[in-house]
Amino acid sequence: MSQPDDVKVDVAFPIPTAMKAWVLGDPGELSLVDKPVPVPKRAEVLVRIDGASICATDLEIIAHGPPAQIEGGLPFNKNFTPGHEYMGTVVALGPGVDEFAIGDRVTVEVHAGCGQCKRCREGMYTACHNYGKNYGDVDKGHRANGFTTDGGFCEYQVNNINTLVHLDESMSDEEATLVVTGGTAMYGLTEIGGLVAGDSVVVTGPGPIGLLATAVAKALGAQPVVLTGTRDNRLEIGKRLGADHVINVRNEDPVEAVRKLSGGKGVDFVVECSGAPNAVNEAAKMLNRGGKICLAAFPSDEVPIDLAYLARNNIYLYSIRGEGKSATHRAEAFMRQKRFDASIIHTHTFDMEDLPEALRYVRDRVEDAIKVVLKNKKKSSTPGKTDEPAMASV
Amino acid sequence: MSQPDDVKVDVAFPIPTAMKAWVLGDPGELSLVDKPVPVPKRAEVLVRIDGASICATDLEIIAHGPPAQIEGGLPFNKNFTPGHEYMGTVVALGPGVDEFAIGDRVTVEVHAGCGQCKRCREGMYTACHNYGKNYGDVDKGHRANGFTTDGGFCEYQVNNINTLVHLDESMSDEEATLVVTGGTAMYGLTEIGGLVAGDSVVVTGPGPIGLLATAVAKALGAQPVVLTGTRDNRLEIGKRLGADHVINVRNEDPVEAVRKLSGGKGVDFVVECSGAPNAVNEAAKMLNRGGKICLAAFPSDEVPIDLAYLARNNIYLYSIRGEGKSATHRAEAFMRQKRFDASIIHTHTFDMEDLPEALRYVRDRVEDAIKVVLKNKKKSSTPGKTDEPAMASV
Amino acid sequence: MSQPDDVKVDVAFPIPTAMKAWVLGDPGELSLVDKPVPVPKRAEVLVRIDGASICATDLEIIAHGPPAQIEGGLPFNKNFTPGHEYMGTVVALGPGVDEFAIGDRVTVEVHAGCGQCKRCREGMYTACHNYGKNYGDVDKGHRANGFTTDGGFCEYQVNNINTLVHLDESMSDEEATLVVTGGTAMYGLTEIGGLVAGDSVVVTGPGPIGLLATAVAKALGAQPVVLTGTRDNRLEIGKRLGADHVINVRNEDPVEAVRKLSGGKGVDFVVECSGAPNAVNEAAKMLNRGGKICLAAFPSDEVPIDLAYLARNNIYLYSIRGEGKSATHRAEAFMRQKRFDASIIHTHTFDMEDLPEALRYVRDRVEDAIKVVLKNKKKSSTPGKTDEPAMASV
Amino acid sequence: MSQPDDVKVDVAFPIPTAMKAWVLGDPGELSLVDKPVPVPKRAEVLVRIDGASICATDLEIIAHGPPAQIEGGLPFNKNFTPGHEYMGTVVALGPGVDEFAIGDRVTVEVHAGCGQCKRCREGMYTACHNYGKNYGDVDKGHRANGFTTDGGFCEYQVNNINTLVHLDESMSDEEATLVVTGGTAMYGLTEIGGLVAGDSVVVTGPGPIGLLATAVAKALGAQPVVLTGTRDNRLEIGKRLGADHVINVRNEDPVEAVRKLSGGKGVDFVVECSGAPNAVNEAAKMLNRGGKICLAAFPSDEVPIDLAYLARNNIYLYSIRGEGKSATHRAEAFMRQKRFDASIIHTHTFDMEDLPEALRYVRDRVEDAIKVVLKNKKKSSTPGKTDEPAMASV
Repeated sequence: MSQPDDVKVDVAFPIPTAMKAWVLGDPGELSLVDKPVPVPKRAEVLVRIDGASICATDLEIIAHGPPAQIEGGLPFNKNFTPGHEYMGTVVALGPGVDEFAIGDRVTVEVHAGCGQCKRCREGMYTACHNYGKNYGDVDKGHRANGFTTDGGFCEYQVNNINTLVHLDESMSDEEATLVVTGGTAMYGLTEIGGLVAGDSVVVTGPGPIGLLATAVAKALGAQPVVLTGTRDNRLEIGKRLGADHVINVRNEDPVEAVRKLSGGKGVDFVVECSGAPNAVNEAAKMLNRGGKICLAAFPSDEVPIDLAYLARNNIYLYSIRGEGKSATHRAEAFMRQKRFDASIIHTHTFDMEDLPEALRYVRDRVEDAIKVVLKNKKKSSTPGKTDEPAMASV
Repeated sequence: MSQPDDVKVDVAFPIPTAMKAWVLGDPGELSLVDKPVPVPKRAEVLVRIDGASICATDLEIIAHGPPAQIEGGLPFNKNFTPGHEYMGTVVALGPGVDEFAIGDRVTVEVHAGCGQCKRCREGMYTACHNYGKNYGDVDKGHRANGFTTDGGFCEYQVNNINTLVHLDESMSDEEATLVVTGGTAMYGLTEIGGLVAGDSVVVTGPGPIGLLATAVAKALGAQPVVLTGTRDNRLEIGKRLGADHVINVRNEDPVEAVRKLSGGKGVDFVVECSGAPNAVNEAAKMLNRGGKICLAAFPSDEVPIDLAYLARNNIYLYSIRGEGKSATHRAEAFMRQKRFDASIIHTHTFDMEDLPEALRYVRDRVEDAIKVVLKNKKKSSTPGKTDEPAMASV
Repeated sequence: MSQPDDVKVDVAFPIPTAMKAWVLGDPGELSLVDKPVPVPKRAEVLVRIDGASICATDLEIIAHGPPAQIEGGLPFNKNFTPGHEYMGTVVALGPGVDEFAIGDRVTVEVHAGCGQCKRCREGMYTACHNYGKNYGDVDKGHRANGFTTDGGFCEYQVNNINTLVHLDESMSDEEATLVVTGGTAMYGLTEIGGLVAGDSVVVTGPGPIGLLATAVAKALGAQPVVLTGTRDNRLEIGKRLGADHVINVRNEDPVEAVRKLSGGKGVDFVVECSGAPNAVNEAAKMLNRGGKICLAAFPSDEVPIDLAYLARNNIYLYSIRGEGKSATHRAEAFMRQKRFDASIIHTHTFDMEDLPEALRYVRDRVEDAIKVVLKNKKKSSTPGKTDEPAMASV
Repeated sequence: MSQPDDVKVDVAFPIPTAMKAWVLGDPGELSLVDKPVPVPKRAEVLVRIDGASICATDLEIIAHGPPAQIEGGLPFNKNFTPGHEYMGTVVALGPGVDEFAIGDRVTVEVHAGCGQCKRCREGMYTACHNYGKNYGDVDKGHRANGFTTDGGFCEYQVNNINTLVHLDESMSDEEATLVVTGGTAMYGLTEIGGLVAGDSVVVTGPGPIGLLATAVAKALGAQPVVLTGTRDNRLEIGKRLGADHVINVRNEDPVEAVRKLSGGKGVDFVVECSGAPNAVNEAAKMLNRGGKICLAAFPSDEVPIDLAYLARNNIYLYSIRGEGKSATHRAEAFMRQKRFDASIIHTHTFDMEDLPEALRYVRDRVEDAIKVVLKNKKKSSTPGKTDEPAMASV
């Protein structure tokens, strides 16, 4: 066993010295290699990864690098392991950790702020001013696993205890990998108001975040919740997750449709999850005066924005990253309480060793893949489409 | 006297039946006409206008109509009187008003919300959902004098008591016309955080709002306060109002300069008052992670915005209108307490009858006019540049 | 028909000139008399009262007067009609009202702020600075029906449109009378944090507000929700409404029990609904550091409080009144969406003419009455205990 | 030199192995002993203490132990060094620290939260759930120097970088020791509203915190600021710090006086700094509806509180500890900008070796001592009353 003396371990959860881990070479190149099992430090634990899911941002990182600029050139050819949506079992405790016990099932959120910058001190740890500073002389303790520190496409990973959420036995491993996505949706709704019961919410874009934003908005009591998108099957899934109305933007103008649904008045909130070039302008025109937009997706290039319309209508725009303000805990609470069934968006399961194929399913939307889950357990050997009820074939 | 029986008047403040008022004909056409003196209703008073100042938005309204869309076609050829920055003396009380007494000196803010829509109920009255609805069958009581209801380029105007601020004797009429501009600046700083003591603030654009945003930020304890602009004389005025640093964007790149001033870290807040096409993108790059932009000016056309940069850096954008959240009261308090000398930006005084000439001074920046004040008092007969100390020539 | 010309009526909803109304004589004396049907003014409607429920505060007002001091001596021997929890049908619209249509089913909240004081302007209308000022020369438009203006123990009442909530067809009249109680619970949870999903909440006191605070806390995702009280049957009802744990304070020390349930750590929030003399001290000791107490009930006399304990543990105390911040709308949304079944606490139904007997049921807890509903409809003639399913016998 | 290799030091600031430090024996017993100079760890620096001031809480701790309960029995006979208001010079940097440089002048705030509990994550680090846990197996990194970890009545102390504020050259050492007291005042005003310009504030109790709360309220633009107390000379000092009115409670009833000053309406905020048994009840009656109380002082025993009055008037009570929400930075900004002259409350200076005599001055208010400052610099050898201008005799 490779863990040092000040790390607490348990014979019931033996930890090898080396593990299998996917690492990134040139852009787009992944290799499965042997890597030392990492060691938890103060306020950290070691998590045995039981399941991970794939996010569109993983595809971005593998192809182009992480969205936020980090000095020093991560992640290409730096032995970097991507993957930021995962869950597992605590198998070792760093010095002084008693918030978790060995054997605890946990899922993760991405960002562990440094805890000592201005933003962390005010509770905005996703905007940590020491973002990415966790190596060598500039180790400020910031971690964003899968972005700036090694992530979950492997067998073991170290997590700051701030990034862990206890799991209930009633939640499957697969569903647990989706908690962080629910956390992002919850964070967006937190920042634009939080107490949205009885308020009207439009979610634009039925990707994983959009679908769970629909579910979370409904769980928080929003009415109506309207989902827009281009594909009827996705919109149908949105209905199952709580959308009161869906709008296929190929068939009708979404601004007109939303204004009609709201009796001409416009809605209170738009959560933009499509990244479409005109999405912010359309969102603004869906809103009533004083309405708010959460920007949870965005186009990569500059796009024309009608700032005058925003100003004339007192519209505020909240550009979020990740899942701050402990939103992941709130998402987990709703999922634990079965307020919505996130597992509806889990469509496929692969073995961790089949990551490249799993990535292909997500990138090319093979068999209309939404969320694809990777399992490290040897028993989950049969990749392919998941029958409903969700985990039956695994 | 024209006021009905349920309006309280006082012989010491006689009210004529008719008054002189500027009214708008075709776009750009103003005429001085006789108009009935208006009558205050419940929760309203009649204000004898002693002074008014000219805002760039007045030029916009006179040329193109009000920035927010109102159904029904105001203001052209509808006998509309513009002007929204004014002060004066209460001369009549609508039924039941006891918050003000006849003879009180007051200055105004623009927006009186309906008091019964969702936004008004949550304290966001500048985003009133009954905006502009104050005529005939759709009278919801909303008033935005000079925007949707008659304004202050005349001798008397009705104001909802919500829009009035008591004045101290120590404040001159001329300075009092500037309180509402200070209120807009204060509102912007309120929405982006409020408690900015010790935080770094950049104000972009040294127009009247930008200059008073500089003054208010400093009064609130911000440090440093940085002002950017294109004209050195304006930037010098900004220094007198509290700017710790000024940047002439003709001489240096403002983003680089701000980042250098902040030790490479970026600032906490940007209050954008320039309306320049690239201002939001530059503001974003001046900020540190989690920083906030207040949009107090805006270009009329769509402009390219780097949404990805906003999202990757957790930047929120607050597009304000007017001077909500009772910010005008806070601005008046600071001005009453002489925390800054707003009268520095008052450059010229004209008689109300000379409005067209006064507008020319503002529009063409004649003699580098910043704030031009109109007086109804017959004694203020000599238009022209105001010597310092400010009010000496009036 | 008694309504003036500027009030909009509809022949389908004929309005008589006079109605039956309960009025208060000396303390404790109620008489059923003929009273003119009131007339809605601007921003008001006339509601035909279909159902009303009885609150413990009604008993207080009838016996001792309203809890908040009003100058001028209301309510005794002033022809005052109590009752503040009611629902019904809009039958006439005051001048300019188009937010509601004749025939709309509505339920009410209590407070219509004046809309023009400092507190109303900041959205805190339950703390209106013109509280109780709605008569004669000091008519500021404040209404608190059943407290400072006539209430709902009659056939028709005027309501400011701010106090109305649209009802869905799926909600029975009886359940709709409980929305305002849910609104009080929601307001308390709003003020102490709002976003309580995953947080731990203790509710002390299983009266109607405490039971619905349990339900609302659970609907918002709190976990665990703990309810304390003295009667097992009430605690059982709490379980049906969402309590994860109940504590009978006759059997165990509630502070010890809560600390044990929370692993020694204490909980995040306590909503105090018992009014017990030691409740605040006990609540403080149930909390973890930085926890918050909502005071929704209170003893009539001064009680010893351990301020040092509050200060040493950074505990904030929110003393709420009524149901501000539009919380009633949020409560209605959750009830409409069937997140909890408020009708569980509706135990008895009486005809409006039997108010004295209904009051006795509440005061003496006859047949363990919780919420007793009064109906004006002639068909609801059979008073007595409501069988389950709830409304079967009505 | 005693510092280990991973600590950065500088020959210009030599650090001895041992230092003189006051330590606590039995309650009330202090001895000056030799102690090892402590060693900064990650995110910590070593501060050479140049000045310290004495707080009433220091007297409490020396006599009775710290106000917040800590398991394990600190501070008596544990070699504990009290003192929590101090300033000095950074002389060594823990591993990875680059936020401060050796030679930086700094002042301190008390609380360094653990950075990983629920409260720290939401920015409420003074309510850290790991309060006092900084020893051995339960080292969570929480520090409250002078409360739960060694404080400043010595020559060198370790501080988490979160607790440090950079000082401007223009601020004297003596004034800098008062920044933390200003921070407590600022924290109280932050929690009750923050944006208090134009609002009315009463401060009860002209001790050091009350006097600086007066100053901070005025710096934030409050009007009027009213200070109550029993001693005219203290009230006069309050006037010099910004009080618009003072009330000697020996001469007039403070509730009546405040209501009269506010035109019968009551004030918006009360900051209670007296600890008097009836202070909360009186504060409540000074307030208007919806007003707020900050509890910054408190009686040690339970006192009767009129909860009904709080509830009927929607009054919220914020019981603060220390100086959270980075308020110390805001206080320092106002002091650096010379918005008020905190040095007015600095009355005496002693050498650190004369701590017992300095404590006597504070405890017995010898020569009406308000703030007594201790200096380590050998040149500050003459104890006694400070002449004005403040530091002349030192």
